[in-house]
This record gives sequence, structure tokens and C-alpha cells, in this order.
Amino acid sequence: MQIIGKEQILDHVDLPAVLNDIENGFKAFASGKAQVAPVTHLGFDTSNGECHIKCAHVDGDEVFTVKLATGFYDNPAKGMSSSNGFMAVISAEHGTPLAILQDEGVLTDLRTALAGVLATRLGARSSAKTIGILGSGIQGHLQAKLICELLGYKSVVIWGRDDEKTASLIEVLRSELPDVDVAQAETPSELCEKADVIVTTTPSKAPLIEAEWVRPGTHIVAVGADSPGKQEIDEQLFARASQIFVDSPSQCIEHGETTNALQAKVIAESDLTPLGEALLNGAKPRSDDDITIADLTGVAVQDAAIAKSVWLNMEQRSK
Amino acid sequence: MQIIGKEQILDHVDLPAVLNDIENGFKAFASGKAQVAPVTHLGFDTSNGECHIKCAHVDGDEVFTVKLATGFYDNPAKGMSSSNGFMAVISAEHGTPLAILQDEGVLTDLRTALAGVLATRLGARSSAKTIGILGSGIQGHLQAKLICELLGYKSVVIWGRDDEKTASLIEVLRSELPDVDVAQAETPSELCEKADVIVTTTPSKAPLIEAEWVRPGTHIVAVGADSPGKQEIDEQLFARASQIFVDSPSQCIEHGETTNALQAKVIAESDLTPLGEALLNGAKPRSDDDITIADLTGVAVQDAAIAKSVWLNMEQRSK
Repeated sequence: MQIIGKEQILDHVDLPAVLNDIENGFKAFASGKAQVAPVTHLGFDTSNGECHIKCAHVDGDEVFTVKLATGFYDNPAKGMSSSNGFMAVISAEHGTPLAILQDEGVLTDLRTALAGVLATRLGARSSAKTIGILGSGIQGHLQAKLICELLGYKSVVIWGRDDEKTASLIEVLRSELPDVDVAQAETPSELCEKADVIVTTTPSKAPLIEAEWVRPGTHIVAVGADSPGKQEIDEQLFARASQIFVDSPSQCIEHGETTNALQAKVIAESDLTPLGEALLNGAKPRSDDDITIADLTGVAVQDAAIAKSVWLNMEQRSK
Repeated sequence: MQIIGKEQILDHVDLPAVLNDIENGFKAFASGKAQVAPVTHLGFDTSNGECHIKCAHVDGDEVFTVKLATGFYDNPAKGMSSSNGFMAVISAEHGTPLAILQDEGVLTDLRTALAGVLATRLGARSSAKTIGILGSGIQGHLQAKLICELLGYKSVVIWGRDDEKTASLIEVLRSELPDVDVAQAETPSELCEKADVIVTTTPSKAPLIEAEWVRPGTHIVAVGADSPGKQEIDEQLFARASQIFVDSPSQCIEHGETTNALQAKVIAESDLTPLGEALLNGAKPRSDDDITIADLTGVAVQDAAIAKSVWLNMEQRSK
């Protein structure tokens, strides 16, 4: 067993291959061909911290993954990052722990963004041209970059609460994606006017996007709401959606963007389509005027897929 | 974060200190001052393997522990050990993973044996002189050795199914404990005749000890039955017990030695005393003729206690 650091991990991430592995992970999850253990949670009140442990194995994979993620929210005041953890890669053939990927959260960031890429490819109308990003943090950055790189979009518009941070992200993206047009939206409603696909990536606890701002034909990929109490989109928008994809039905019902729409009885659970099922069988045909939503809360098969890919690449190269 | 190997781990185990820590762990567990997460289980049918993940934190401890243990039962045929895994030690103050204790199972063996020491000290009558060990495996060895070393017993009698293995264990114990009388019992019933405390450590799935063999005054520490289907003791013995200690009520009800007695309606759940509660408040007074039973299935607070102790000793010595 060895500990692998962030730089070495990043050196072994093959994004198109991981995208494919994550797609297969979602398909396996939706068809009962993956084990995803219930999430374990420990809380640390006196230090304002928590720990989540997520485990998954996709049938047939030579390894499985146990991810430990901590969030200690008083750390920044002590000059430390609030998040930490690792992914352990273990042989599914003989139980030997093979590696500790001490990724500093970068693999979780990447697998989250790659689910956004899959959800965009699945749900966006074929004439969609502009990606709108709500939020200027790590996910805003990665979603914009990877959707353009992997799906060939040439136009991005970004809204962020913090103007300076947004301007700085736009500069970074312009240098990373020289042939992509990157612009700033002054308001969330301007973002809705300009974008064909909107990826929401903020930790907001109140809707930032009103239902009536969203134009016909828009595909929404909701990434930010991943725990109870979070909300980025007016739940009334769900009433206008012709199709709603959910990465994990149970999680999205319990603590995703979908939760708010279900609680307000705008939709019913029967309106939800598991993402993996749609990836397996194809999404329902959509018109250019349909609004569609994908709600992503993060599933351990994504961790299993990216950790396996990194580990196998390391094994391959060391031969 | 660093990976610590077995030799270095053993070099930092201070048994009396760990005994004390495990006792405090049980007390915290019984009084709601420890977090013990539900055990996570993954199964690997095609390779006849499984993985358990156990996590615990005792309130106030600076670290918490996540233990990953695998059992792949076709490994021995491939020349590999069936069990593997590690304990991760993580800061409960800022969430940073501090160490991976790659103990090859030795910490689990030790914390299991130390619970036997605690249960012996708690339940044995004061005039008890001879420890009887049922089974000649690692637990049989450790229970005999640690009970004598830590509690001062001077007489051990051992029964094992495999005569050669038993003879070899007796030889090892005689050399490790030169002032202790170590003898072999030819049968389990002879063991019952000679022992005042009986520690059962086999993986048996049918009773090896009949109820009528057990003499008045005997204290039984049942260690072997830790998963569904295991049984070492005739469940009718529970009817003769004046006190029954359980390390974890829910586990012992579900898959300990106690399970069989409950299912046969020999006892009721209200007859069980949590081990930690008895350690906190003292066991009920016992006469020299009372039979008592302690059922041990293994609780994650034991892992947290031993891993914390090793880690703090390493920190201390590196200063």
C-alpha cells in the first residue's frame, strides 16, 4: 500500500476515460449492478466538523473505493482548508488495500464536474450553443472548462455573487480555452437570457433563479444543492420541465434541488428519471422548446470510477 | 499522513494504558458519550470476499478511527492471508487524516483480547484461580497471555480441536509465562471441570460446551460468536446465569452468543446488562456459586481506543 499525493494523482487522470467510467458507473448503479453503501456520517460539534464515508463497487471492477471526506468549518480561521480526506483503493479480488489517494478533494471536484458533463450531453437540445454558469467557485470553473473541452461548446457566460472573483475566473477560462467566448452576466436573469444550458454551482440556501426567467429550450444542470436546506432554483420551474433526471432518486428526494419541488407538490416522485437509466436507454426525445432539469447530488459510483481509473493508469505506467 | 507498519505499531502498544482506554471507551459507549456509526458492509460474491467498515469517536478524544477490514476466504489457497485492512486515525479537531495504521489485523486481535481481560476482571468471582481457554488460535493465545499478564492469574488450561496446535500453543505459553501453570484439557467437559473462568474463542457453529458441564461459580467470557450462525455454548446455560454482560446490546441480540438464548426464549432482553454500564457502576454482587456470562461481539470504540493510544504514543515519542 502506498500514499499517492495530489500532483501524482492529477498526472494519472485521463478525463475522457474517466467520463466513460463514470457513465458506466451510473448505468451500473441504475441497473442494480453496483454496490453503493449507505453514507456514514460522524459529527464533531465542539470543532464544528463532520466526516462522511462513501463506499462503492461496480460489479466486475477489480477494485473498490472507500472515500473519507471531512469538513471542519472553523479551519479557515486557523489557516487550514475546511475540507480534507482521501480515497482508499482496495482489491475486489483479494481485499488488499492498494493505495491511499490523498487527493485534497480534487478527485471529488473532478467527478462532480464530469457528472455535469454527462448530464449536459444527455439533456441539452442539439442546437444549444451557450453554457451559463451560476457561481464562480471551483465547480463553476471545472464545469465550464470540462463541458467546453469534452463536449465542444464555444460560448460560456458566467454569473457570480462576487464580481472580482467572477472577473478573475473569466480571465482564467479565457487563457485555458482560447477559442471559447467567455462573458460575464450582470445578473442571474441575464444569465438565463443568454444561456442554453445552465449549470448551477453555488451553496445558496434560497433560489437565485426565478422560474419565469428560464427560456423554453433551456437545460438546467443543478449541482450546488447537495444537502438539506440548499436551493438555487425556484421550485416552480419543475412544473415547466418535460423531463427531470436525478443522479440518485433517494438522495435527490431527500436532499437535492428536487426535494423543494416535491415538498411544494409541484412534481411527484414518479416524474423523476434516474440518470443512469436515461444514459442506458437514452433520454426521451425533446423539442427545442422543452425545459429539462438534471439534479446531481453526487453518488459513490463516481468516486469508485475515478479512483479506479487513476489506480489502473498508475499500474499500467509502472509496468 | 503516513502509513505505519505492524512492527512500528506493536512497538507503540502500551497494554495497561490501552486496557484503560478500552474500558473508558465502553463506559462512554454505554452512557451515550461515544459515536459508533452503523457498520458498513460490502460483499464480493465472485471472489468469496467481504469488507466491513467501522467508525467511532469517544467524546473529547483528539482523534477518531475508521477501520476497514476485509475477509477474502479463497485467499489462503492463493498463498495469501484471508484478512487484511487498516485503521485510519483522523483528527477530531480539524479533520486531517494523520496516519494509516496498517496493522495486518493485530490491533483488532489485541483489542478483542483486552475486552476479554476487562470482562474477566469484571465478572470472575474473587476466588477464581484457573483460566480455561476453549480454542487454540490467535485469540486463545492472546486471551490466555493477557489475562495472566494483566490480572495475575497463575493457572491456565486449554482445550483445542487440533491436538498438535494445542500442544504447540501450550509450549509457547509456558515459555512466555514461565511462572504460570499451563495444562491441556482432553475434552471441553474436562475444561469445565478445571476452569473457574472459561474464555471461548472458536468459530464453532454448534455448541461445544453443554450447560450441565459448567460448575457453579464459573464465569464465561464468550468471544468466538461474533456473526450470525455461530455458537459455542449450549443456550440453556443462560438460564443458570445470575448476570449476563453484553458489549453491545444491539449486536449481541442480533448475532452474538446471546442471540441463541433469546431465540430459544431461555432469557429476555431485559436480562442483559451493557458491559460499559457494569464497568461504570460495578457488577451486581455475586456469590461464589453464581454463574455469570459476558458476551463480546466487538465494538468500534475498542478500535478507536487502541488506535488513539498507538497514535498518541508515536506523537509523544517523536517530540
